[in-house]
Amino acid sequence: MTDSSTNMRLKLPAACFILEIILIILFGVLVEYDHDTDAKLFNKDMTDSKANEHHGHAAGTSHNISSHNAEYENDFYYRYPSFQDVHVMIFIGFGFLMTFLQRYGFSSVGFNFLIAAFSLQWATLMQGFLHGLHDGKIAIGVESMINADFCTGSVLISFGAVLGKTSPLQLLIMAIFEVTLFSVNEFILLSLLGTRDAGGSMTIHTFGAYFGLMVTRILYRPNLDKSKHKNSSVYHSDMFAMIGTIYLWMFWPSFNSAITEHGDPQHRTAMNTYYSLAACTLSTYAMSALTAHDGKLDMVHIQNAALAGGVAAGTAGEMMLTPFGSMIVGFLAGIISVLGFKYLSPILEAKLKIQDTCGVHNLHGMPGILGAIVGAITASVVPKEVYGNGLKKVFPDVADGVRDTSYQGAMQAASIAVTLGIALFGGLLVGFILKLPMLGAPRDNACFEDNIYWEVPGEEHHMEELTVVRTEEDETLNS
Amino acid sequence: MTDSSTNMRLKLPAACFILEIILIILFGVLVEYDHDTDAKLFNKDMTDSKANEHHGHAAGTSHNISSHNAEYENDFYYRYPSFQDVHVMIFIGFGFLMTFLQRYGFSSVGFNFLIAAFSLQWATLMQGFLHGLHDGKIAIGVESMINADFCTGSVLISFGAVLGKTSPLQLLIMAIFEVTLFSVNEFILLSLLGTRDAGGSMTIHTFGAYFGLMVTRILYRPNLDKSKHKNSSVYHSDMFAMIGTIYLWMFWPSFNSAITEHGDPQHRTAMNTYYSLAACTLSTYAMSALTAHDGKLDMVHIQNAALAGGVAAGTAGEMMLTPFGSMIVGFLAGIISVLGFKYLSPILEAKLKIQDTCGVHNLHGMPGILGAIVGAITASVVPKEVYGNGLKKVFPDVADGVRDTSYQGAMQAASIAVTLGIALFGGLLVGFILKLPMLGAPRDNACFEDNIYWEVPGEEHHMEELTVVRTEEDETLNS
Amino acid sequence: MTDSSTNMRLKLPAACFILEIILIILFGVLVEYDHDTDAKLFNKDMTDSKANEHHGHAAGTSHNISSHNAEYENDFYYRYPSFQDVHVMIFIGFGFLMTFLQRYGFSSVGFNFLIAAFSLQWATLMQGFLHGLHDGKIAIGVESMINADFCTGSVLISFGAVLGKTSPLQLLIMAIFEVTLFSVNEFILLSLLGTRDAGGSMTIHTFGAYFGLMVTRILYRPNLDKSKHKNSSVYHSDMFAMIGTIYLWMFWPSFNSAITEHGDPQHRTAMNTYYSLAACTLSTYAMSALTAHDGKLDMVHIQNAALAGGVAAGTAGEMMLTPFGSMIVGFLAGIISVLGFKYLSPILEAKLKIQDTCGVHNLHGMPGILGAIVGAITASVVPKEVYGNGLKKVFPDVADGVRDTSYQGAMQAASIAVTLGIALFGGLLVGFILKLPMLGAPRDNACFEDNIYWEVPGEEHHMEELTVVRTEEDETLNS
Repeated sequence: MTDSSTNMRLKLPAACFILEIILIILFGVLVEYDHDTDAKLFNKDMTDSKANEHHGHAAGTSHNISSHNAEYENDFYYRYPSFQDVHVMIFIGFGFLMTFLQRYGFSSVGFNFLIAAFSLQWATLMQGFLHGLHDGKIAIGVESMINADFCTGSVLISFGAVLGKTSPLQLLIMAIFEVTLFSVNEFILLSLLGTRDAGGSMTIHTFGAYFGLMVTRILYRPNLDKSKHKNSSVYHSDMFAMIGTIYLWMFWPSFNSAITEHGDPQHRTAMNTYYSLAACTLSTYAMSALTAHDGKLDMVHIQNAALAGGVAAGTAGEMMLTPFGSMIVGFLAGIISVLGFKYLSPILEAKLKIQDTCGVHNLHGMPGILGAIVGAITASVVPKEVYGNGLKKVFPDVADGVRDTSYQGAMQAASIAVTLGIALFGGLLVGFILKLPMLGAPRDNACFEDNIYWEVPGEEHHMEELTVVRTEEDETLNS
Repeated sequence: MTDSSTNMRLKLPAACFILEIILIILFGVLVEYDHDTDAKLFNKDMTDSKANEHHGHAAGTSHNISSHNAEYENDFYYRYPSFQDVHVMIFIGFGFLMTFLQRYGFSSVGFNFLIAAFSLQWATLMQGFLHGLHDGKIAIGVESMINADFCTGSVLISFGAVLGKTSPLQLLIMAIFEVTLFSVNEFILLSLLGTRDAGGSMTIHTFGAYFGLMVTRILYRPNLDKSKHKNSSVYHSDMFAMIGTIYLWMFWPSFNSAITEHGDPQHRTAMNTYYSLAACTLSTYAMSALTAHDGKLDMVHIQNAALAGGVAAGTAGEMMLTPFGSMIVGFLAGIISVLGFKYLSPILEAKLKIQDTCGVHNLHGMPGILGAIVGAITASVVPKEVYGNGLKKVFPDVADGVRDTSYQGAMQAASIAVTLGIALFGGLLVGFILKLPMLGAPRDNACFEDNIYWEVPGEEHHMEELTVVRTEEDETLNS
Repeated sequence: MTDSSTNMRLKLPAACFILEIILIILFGVLVEYDHDTDAKLFNKDMTDSKANEHHGHAAGTSHNISSHNAEYENDFYYRYPSFQDVHVMIFIGFGFLMTFLQRYGFSSVGFNFLIAAFSLQWATLMQGFLHGLHDGKIAIGVESMINADFCTGSVLISFGAVLGKTSPLQLLIMAIFEVTLFSVNEFILLSLLGTRDAGGSMTIHTFGAYFGLMVTRILYRPNLDKSKHKNSSVYHSDMFAMIGTIYLWMFWPSFNSAITEHGDPQHRTAMNTYYSLAACTLSTYAMSALTAHDGKLDMVHIQNAALAGGVAAGTAGEMMLTPFGSMIVGFLAGIISVLGFKYLSPILEAKLKIQDTCGVHNLHGMPGILGAIVGAITASVVPKEVYGNGLKKVFPDVADGVRDTSYQGAMQAASIAVTLGIALFGGLLVGFILKLPMLGAPRDNACFEDNIYWEVPGEEHHMEELTVVRTEEDETLNS
């Protein structure tokens, strides 16, 4: 592999070192521990508090509440298990889901790892900068870690759209811009419009999908069929991909509930998502068999569409959607997603020149919009009496009387348009930047192939006769 | 693959759609949020408490603590981490454990996924119906989610007995009946007999194993040796199976402790299970080497028997079994399980015509009964003084003076007989139902083979010459 | 495979049975439930608690049991999620990380499983014996479980150094001694010197690495190149190894924070480690591309060096290191680790005759020492005012006025020397013990090969022509 533009020997180290050093400097200047991670702040009232300590009711399960900084009030204990589940989704879930390609496993897991590790640092800064600088400082803790992982998830969705067709350098550049625009969009929705989107149907899934789709549209390769034989799975690569799928499916309840308010919203969101996913799985299997000419199940559908129920419960999951409503949403999401893979994706490629490697439009795009619409409707039509005193945990503006439910619903709906606008515009911009030849994109006949950017080991020694074929082919790629 | 009966194009979608729509309707009619997931109920006393409300550390995400319903009292924070561990066992653990077959990985993980997604919904209804309808409604939260996953686990154990020999439609039909009978048996044991079985040695393992063994007995295939060459592992499939094994092993402490009472019982159960599994692992390795003519370890034993310590600690784990007792139990379970794989399974197949693909009798059947017996003995012989005030968390009827420890032990022992009776009778019934030809079971020479029900990708392109062999063989299967 | 010395038919069962029976007896004599796992102790003051209530979360590692024993104060809810993450690291993380070898996957996961299951039991006894026998009894709970897993981690690091060159019997013998010496070293550092090392940069990583390096030095095989063709990866084995890597990476924040004090230290440690790892990942990718002649990334670096940031944050992670400091540490750790793999390991093998299969010197050795140094510096230079009232959670001796920060730093530094001394001396001793021929080490031409100790299945049937090659080779090994 001697193609000079795809040689990453100097470009990738330069990019990684420069970016990491900038990150370190900015962290040094801007970032500090929050009240729950700082030794001094968390324990500051410890001495004064001895006097006015008091206790709650001491019933069968007696719960005493000390007024100051009892350890169990530390946000760590409310969110860290959810954080770790989200973390697994980002690194194992997304990483392995994309290993379905037969010769792109190193890149799928490895580039996922690289851009996620970068994005979570950069997201900490951008989200902190936009969501609340205090005295010029960004205070961080487990909640900001979850938010950083969320933003990273959006970048990884876009990665799915361009999978196999980009260099690690292009991906890092994409991540820089996407994290920034994600944070701007998130700020507009959550802070300016007062939109609720705990699981990110809009901020994460819709944004990431349409951003990525626009990028892959700009990077359209008319001769991609030169790599066609690599753009498919083999038996073992589908098994690895199922690891990703199952982890995403299992932990989606944690994802959607990770940053809701403590107590009933977190509990309810997890449960709504659980039932949405279960219903989605059944409709996915049904549609996969129904749309196959011989009734055989298609791994692409199972690996992806069965997850659409999690995406679609991302906005309304924390609301009083009920398990019944959640199951309807999941059921529809599975149907839409399989139909998208089967009928819409080929059209998008043929007519709109959108080469969407992982089909993120079907897993994140349409289900994300479905989730956003469900959220807008649920916000509008469920009367606030249903929430009782819990209303302020879900719709604080409605609880405060600042707005009514229909206004909340309208803001939710408007957020879809804002998200699509920023995603598409951002993807357009970034797509053109990524076209710079120096960024080292693989040539058309070398897409979906690890050994452009990775040392790939030979086959097992008893397959020597077969690897001759491979070596010859590699030389062809180099010529 | 044009065999009309195994073609799932219409049957599977019809079954999935009808079942899911029925589930959705029943959820709409019967299911509601419980006190910890409902916004109104969880926060209902919030206003009365305004007076004595206090603030925790007033950080960015301020945590108001009302005197009632403090967020940290929400059951979510006691059980959700355990729930997620159980969830991983159900979907990754069981799913991948069964991928040891060389050409049945898609089905192992994929059918596991389908029937688990169905079962957990149906179990929510059946368990809710039997264990406590309030005002005609089933109130759900994290504990019901764990219970639904537990019931699902039982179905997956039965799946292990019939692995490779059933269509997805048969599995769904089996799940409908098994979930129902599981719930009936669980109701009899826990509610009528007052039996303690937190980790389900009886309700989950014994029930699932003997139910599945009876089903596979009824579905006996005299000519199964036509698929014999597929009924074994290859190197990579054994590696995938180890993912399942290790996850089951690691999270079994969470499984057994997931629905015990809060506090010391949950803590103690997890720890007892941890030591039982550790001891079981050593006796499994010892027995595996000892029973091999050349002293080589057998992956079948390691993948399965090393888990028997978790099964066997399922009943007594929450009791004052002590780590010492737990280790003895685990040690014996490993020995019994390896002996079962080595000597009993061949006899069961030859003499009783029980074709137990995964050897569930050795992992869940015998260790489940062992666990039940240990539970009965422990309940009988440990004096109630050992529990002090903690007695009511483990044996509420004994603490209330309704029964003494020996009566409790007798009820525990009686529960084994009840469980075996319902499991065997249920398996008999369901076995005959599953024989209906329209359900699309694979023919004898097409068992243990994914490509009856799945689109299976070709091998890597450099193996073209080898796949010719496969294609010819597939045609043979179709003929 | 008829080599009599490698035949484990009697040796392995004898070792496993004898060891397990000794463990069970010692547990019976010495071990009891602690206050949080015992039914009586945890609930003892339940009735008379109203009067003398007091809060328990103020103390050191000892958990003051408040008389009312609210369930949420049970240490289980503070540590069990972290414990499970650590558990995954030990069994999946270490186990799969070592599956990179093409024909050693069964042994990597399987021997990892065996020696971990043994070590955690033995560690419970040794650590309990040294760290606090109360009335001649060892009281155990979730914290001791984490500590046992930690000690096990150290043994698994040493396993990495000798991977592929030892019998399971040798590994068990090594574990017996290493757990013992680990516990002695841990006791000297934590109890005698008052050293802080929550994540074990010294006690776990430095100790395990240098112990293992000395063992592999003593077991030096001049003719190891006879197995050279097996001492490398293939495509799928590298994918399995990435499962191990990613799990270790994701859960390292839980590892480092698992036994810190409740509240801010646990929260802060997790966050520091998260950023250290992220920074380390970028410097690892940079260095991997930079040191390759063609700029291609090397899986060995990604699988290992990207984790060095977790090792290096093991001591200072709980201190007020700041995310900024953590990122610098991680950044440096990644650079050092890749340089070690690339340039130092070959020198160690050629000049010092250290055959370090997994390169544990680069992942655990040097980063461990780096972490220890960072810990000593951080302890010395961060003024105690920075910690406020939180000082006693991190440096209790400094908070009590027993020592000042520079003395604390000096003790931290001295601990490095103590750890290296005990590790190297212990490795020397154990290395010679492991040379006993009866322990059944594989011959030079049979290293890195599962089928010495495992029944290895044939290849898929369509590869029959290829397996002939393997069979002939196996016969060669047997001759």
